[in-house]
Amino acid sequence: MNSNIESHSHHISKQFNVELEDVKNQLLEMGGVIERQIADAMQSLLDGDSGLAAQVLSVEDRIDAMEISIDEECSLILARRHPAASDLRLVLGVIKAVRDLERMGDESAKVARMAIKLSEEGEFSQGHVEFRHLADSVTKMVSAALDAFARYDAEAALEVVRADVAVDMIYGSVMRSLITYMMEDPRSITRVLNMLWALRALERIGDHAKNIAEHVIYLVKGMDVRHEKLEVVEDQLEELLGD
Amino acid sequence: MNSNIESHSHHISKQFNVELEDVKNQLLEMGGVIERQIADAMQSLLDGDSGLAAQVLSVEDRIDAMEISIDEECSLILARRHPAASDLRLVLGVIKAVRDLERMGDESAKVARMAIKLSEEGEFSQGHVEFRHLADSVTKMVSAALDAFARYDAEAALEVVRADVAVDMIYGSVMRSLITYMMEDPRSITRVLNMLWALRALERIGDHAKNIAEHVIYLVKGMDVRHEKLEVVEDQLEELLGD
Repeated sequence: MNSNIESHSHHISKQFNVELEDVKNQLLEMGGVIERQIADAMQSLLDGDSGLAAQVLSVEDRIDAMEISIDEECSLILARRHPAASDLRLVLGVIKAVRDLERMGDESAKVARMAIKLSEEGEFSQGHVEFRHLADSVTKMVSAALDAFARYDAEAALEVVRADVAVDMIYGSVMRSLITYMMEDPRSITRVLNMLWALRALERIGDHAKNIAEHVIYLVKGMDVRHEKLEVVEDQLEELLGD
Repeated sequence: MNSNIESHSHHISKQFNVELEDVKNQLLEMGGVIERQIADAMQSLLDGDSGLAAQVLSVEDRIDAMEISIDEECSLILARRHPAASDLRLVLGVIKAVRDLERMGDESAKVARMAIKLSEEGEFSQGHVEFRHLADSVTKMVSAALDAFARYDAEAALEVVRADVAVDMIYGSVMRSLITYMMEDPRSITRVLNMLWALRALERIGDHAKNIAEHVIYLVKGMDVRHEKLEVVEDQLEELLGD
C-alpha cells in the first residue's frame, strides 16, 4: 500500500530496526490492553456489573507503567540512534499515540466508576440503547486506528477521522434526548447525570482514536492534519496517495 | 536555583543554543496567548459577554498554527542537532507541553461557547461565585506552571501538582451544590448543565497545568512523576533537590 513500510526495514544497524519495531509493538500491545479496558468498562455499565468495573480500575497501574516504559524507550532511541525522516516521525508518533492510549484508559476508568455508581443506585436502563450504539461506533474507531498504525495505512486512518464526525453527531443527539428525559422526570437527575458522564467519556475515547489516526497520517505522509477541515485533509491525502 | 539552567547554555554550536531558546520562548509566548484566552473566556461567562466569547473563539486558529509551528521546530532540532540528556528532555518537554497548551485553548473555547449559550438563555447567576473561585485557582495554576517552565524550577512545579488536588476538591463540591440546586428547581436544568460543562472545562485546564508542571519536573530532574502519588513525588524530589 505504501512505500514507508519498506523504508523502516533498511537500516545500517540491524539493532536499530529491532528497537523501532519493538516500540511499535509495545504501543500496539498497550493498544490491545486499552481495547480490552474499553470493552470491559462498557460491558460493566450495560450489565450493572460492579465486579467487572472494579477489574477495569485495577488495571490502571499496569497501563501507567506501560506508558512510562514506552516513553523511556523512545527517549533512548532518540538519544542513541538519532533517527531521521520517517524513523523520527515513527518515534514521535509513538510518543504522541501512547499518551492518547493512556487517556483512553483514564476515560474507560471513568465509565467503570459511573457503572459502579449506577449499579448502586438500582435498576436504570434509560440511555442504554444509545450508550450501546455509541459504544459500538467508538470501539470500531479505536480498533481501526490501531490497525492503521500497525499497517502504516493513511487511508484507513482517514476513515477514522471521518468516523469521528458521525460519533460526535450520535453523541449530541443522545445528550439532547437524555436531558429532555431528565427534565420530564427530575427524580432521575443523578442517574441521568452519571449516564451523561459515561457517554462523554465514550465521546472522548473517540476523540483520542481520531488523534491516533492523525498521528498515523503524519508518520506515513509527513503531513500534519490536526486542525484541518476534513475536506482539506482528503484533498491533500488524495494528492499524496496519487503519487 | 538549579544547575540545569546553566547546562543549556554551553554548547559547541552557538546556533543550537539559539534554537533551543527559541522553541522554549515560542512555547512561553503561546502560553501567554492561552492565559489571555482563559481569562477572557472566564470573564465572558461571568459578565454574560457574548462578544468577548466570540473573540475567544476567533483566536483558536492562531493557537492551532502556533502548536504546529512549535512541533515542527522541535522535529527539526531532533533531526539536525541530535540533542542528548537535558537538551533532549527540553525538546520532548516542549513537544508535550505544547499539546497541553493547545488543549487548554480547546477548554477555554468550551467555556466561551457555554458563555454564549448562558447569555442567550437570559439572566442566571447560579454558580457564579463558585465559578469565579475555581477560575481564580486554575488561573494561578496555569501561570505558575508556565513560570516554572520558564525558570526550570522543579520546586515551583511541585507546588502546581499540589494545587491540583485542592482544585479537584473545589470542583467536586461545586458540582454537588449545583446538582442539588438543579434537583430543587428542574426548570433550571439546561442552564445548570451549561454551567457544569463550563466548570468541568476549568477543572480540565487545571489538569493540563498539572501536566505541564510534571513535564517541568521531568525536564529538570530527569524524573517521570506522572501517575505517582504526591507523597512519593515529594520524597523523591527532596532527595534530588538535596544534592
